[in-house]
Amino acid sequence: MSNPANPGNSANKPSPLKLTAEVISIGDEMTSGARLDTNSQWLSQRLGELGVEVRFQTTVGDMLRDNIDVFQIAADRVDIVICSGGLGPTQDDLTREALAEVVDEPLEFRQQAMDHIEGLFGARKRPMPERNRVQAMFPRSSQIIPNPQGTAPGIDLLIDRGHSTACRVFALPGVPAEMKLMFNETVSHQIAEMSGGGNVIQHHVMKFFGTGESDMESRLGDMIARDRQPRVGITVSEATLSLRITAMADSLQRCTEQIASTKTEILNRVGELYFGDGENYEQYHAIDSMLRARDESLAVLELGFAAPLGHWFASLGETPAYRGGLSLAAMPETPLDQIQSQFGADWLLVVDGYPAIPGDLVGHVPACDVRLLIVTADGTTHEKSIHIGGHPEILQPRIGKAAMAWLRSVVSQSRKA
Amino acid sequence: MSNPANPGNSANKPSPLKLTAEVISIGDEMTSGARLDTNSQWLSQRLGELGVEVRFQTTVGDMLRDNIDVFQIAADRVDIVICSGGLGPTQDDLTREALAEVVDEPLEFRQQAMDHIEGLFGARKRPMPERNRVQAMFPRSSQIIPNPQGTAPGIDLLIDRGHSTACRVFALPGVPAEMKLMFNETVSHQIAEMSGGGNVIQHHVMKFFGTGESDMESRLGDMIARDRQPRVGITVSEATLSLRITAMADSLQRCTEQIASTKTEILNRVGELYFGDGENYEQYHAIDSMLRARDESLAVLELGFAAPLGHWFASLGETPAYRGGLSLAAMPETPLDQIQSQFGADWLLVVDGYPAIPGDLVGHVPACDVRLLIVTADGTTHEKSIHIGGHPEILQPRIGKAAMAWLRSVVSQSRKA
Repeated sequence: MSNPANPGNSANKPSPLKLTAEVISIGDEMTSGARLDTNSQWLSQRLGELGVEVRFQTTVGDMLRDNIDVFQIAADRVDIVICSGGLGPTQDDLTREALAEVVDEPLEFRQQAMDHIEGLFGARKRPMPERNRVQAMFPRSSQIIPNPQGTAPGIDLLIDRGHSTACRVFALPGVPAEMKLMFNETVSHQIAEMSGGGNVIQHHVMKFFGTGESDMESRLGDMIARDRQPRVGITVSEATLSLRITAMADSLQRCTEQIASTKTEILNRVGELYFGDGENYEQYHAIDSMLRARDESLAVLELGFAAPLGHWFASLGETPAYRGGLSLAAMPETPLDQIQSQFGADWLLVVDGYPAIPGDLVGHVPACDVRLLIVTADGTTHEKSIHIGGHPEILQPRIGKAAMAWLRSVVSQSRKA
Repeated sequence: MSNPANPGNSANKPSPLKLTAEVISIGDEMTSGARLDTNSQWLSQRLGELGVEVRFQTTVGDMLRDNIDVFQIAADRVDIVICSGGLGPTQDDLTREALAEVVDEPLEFRQQAMDHIEGLFGARKRPMPERNRVQAMFPRSSQIIPNPQGTAPGIDLLIDRGHSTACRVFALPGVPAEMKLMFNETVSHQIAEMSGGGNVIQHHVMKFFGTGESDMESRLGDMIARDRQPRVGITVSEATLSLRITAMADSLQRCTEQIASTKTEILNRVGELYFGDGENYEQYHAIDSMLRARDESLAVLELGFAAPLGHWFASLGETPAYRGGLSLAAMPETPLDQIQSQFGADWLLVVDGYPAIPGDLVGHVPACDVRLLIVTADGTTHEKSIHIGGHPEILQPRIGKAAMAWLRSVVSQSRKA
């Protein structure tokens, strides 16, 4: 069990304590299904990176009795509770009241929180509605979690459970941007301290394409063990794999060293699939910087039932390395090199073509063959056929990503124009 | 409280009983945050349509003790539990075992389920692994819920809670396609019967664009009341609004009549925003059928930091009404009517242009002005400027959708070419 009062004694040799957690989301909009809860997934990923095992996620509507019950059940079965939602100024925001009931304490007014709320309204040159005053009310024994972006401060509260240590509750607002910032700036450091792993945390995200999650897992082997320091976590989004390295130590320098050596080890194992770093870094960013370095440019031609590459490359904006995209139902009569020169591009990437996807998205689409073409600056045409399948919802982006992976390899093996 | 044994007595005058539910998702991949749970949202929406109030959603990992606890807590606080996951053939699939423990019954072998499982393997010409035999084991007092698509049958079980009626648990597999089909084909009818509203259910989805959710709510007024028959639910996806009408009655004819009169009432209130029917029906489908009826065709030119229209219209495939899409960073030197004739299109829709979106997607983007152009078959150019803002994640699709809404209105007001 954790001992938040004494985090320092394992500073030199981190031996993290295994803490358990429950993530709670509050709001009728989730229990009714009107809104998809994504806060719980995000918080569970972050807790996992901090070495905390999430054992339950609970969503509850805006009823006081249900909220009290949910907090009591959670406090009894885990060490840490992170909840989001129910901290707004309206009558159906009940988290403050529910927590005060659970610890049997009155809510008390905190001038410090009030000053922050009034300051935000002042900066927006609007009068503060009287009802926002409730956001400065806190259970007596709780601490304030600052919210730099919004009017809802968070609540940090210990719930005594009559046995061993208390359960620590971190209540955050439901607005994802505010919740994430508050978790990263305050809560994550408190938890790192509770688990005795040092309270400096650093993340590094590496991106990969070209294999599945289970192959990546087996190639990384013991690197993804839950008790490894730093931890390495895998997530997949539309066939792009992210490895997230989380270092916890007593200094930034120590974190940086740990991440650097882990990164080297990862590249030794799966380096040929790696294309760059950063949460939002995609293959089209890698192609952009590759072509800019060579002073070359690209256009894309997409045929068939989708055109994701045009949409993705457009998001780069006005880069000299991307000239534009054309999408058509089938191969045009205009020769490819003429299309290439109309765009003024050194490279033309052609996907021929994206298959039709059944409207109901049930089950798997039979694997299909897709022809890829690359026309180079000197007029040479490379051709490749890929055999690709999988869930229909991600089949089209996967085809576009396979095309980009092949383009990266062809460009990197070719001489500069 | 419900009385599943006697559903018939309110047949002529439906007076649905208010049932409460908990939705449970099972799997370490959810509690760890590796996978986003979308089953709970889907099930909560369907339960709401059936007049059942979802009070809790719970996610639990693959630990037997935690699963038993979660089922016991749920059975004590709601009338209906729907869980998904944990019915596979491997050792971490624990739903069968947990439910048997909760009702204190042994698991018994069901030949009927075994025949189905063996039949599926036979059809795929693969031998059945011995471990799949466990999928034919059921708590003694439970019923089988057929799974036409997969090897995991569902479990329909009553948990006695020592007071009032029993809690009814429907355990379904976690694979979304299987779960949805089993809910629609079996579970939904059982629940409709429990609530006394008749056991024939019919859905109808109407699609709208051009306003926000809260404006839609206030214009529909009492039509979206929870106790209305048939029920009308609002969902929003990337600024497209869906109204889902759910009729429950004793005959298909009665459902159809209810839906028809509700549809008329909706069109009287918000008809000018309506563009078609069906869960997956979008504005580009409406434009496709509009132009096909006129024997006309469209091309799109998208400028700036996105190109969603090219991707969406491509999904229509080889329709005579869509000629293709071009995306460029900025307005080309080639005149627009020349681009239009290169595509051989009667209409050219131009979005000038999609703004850049900050990479971290925090907070709102300041509203921006986007210029839209429509070039018609006779060379006339219409121009319109839209002022648009909102959350950065949906700003680009919202701009594309606003462009389509304007195109629909211009086309419908113009004479056929």
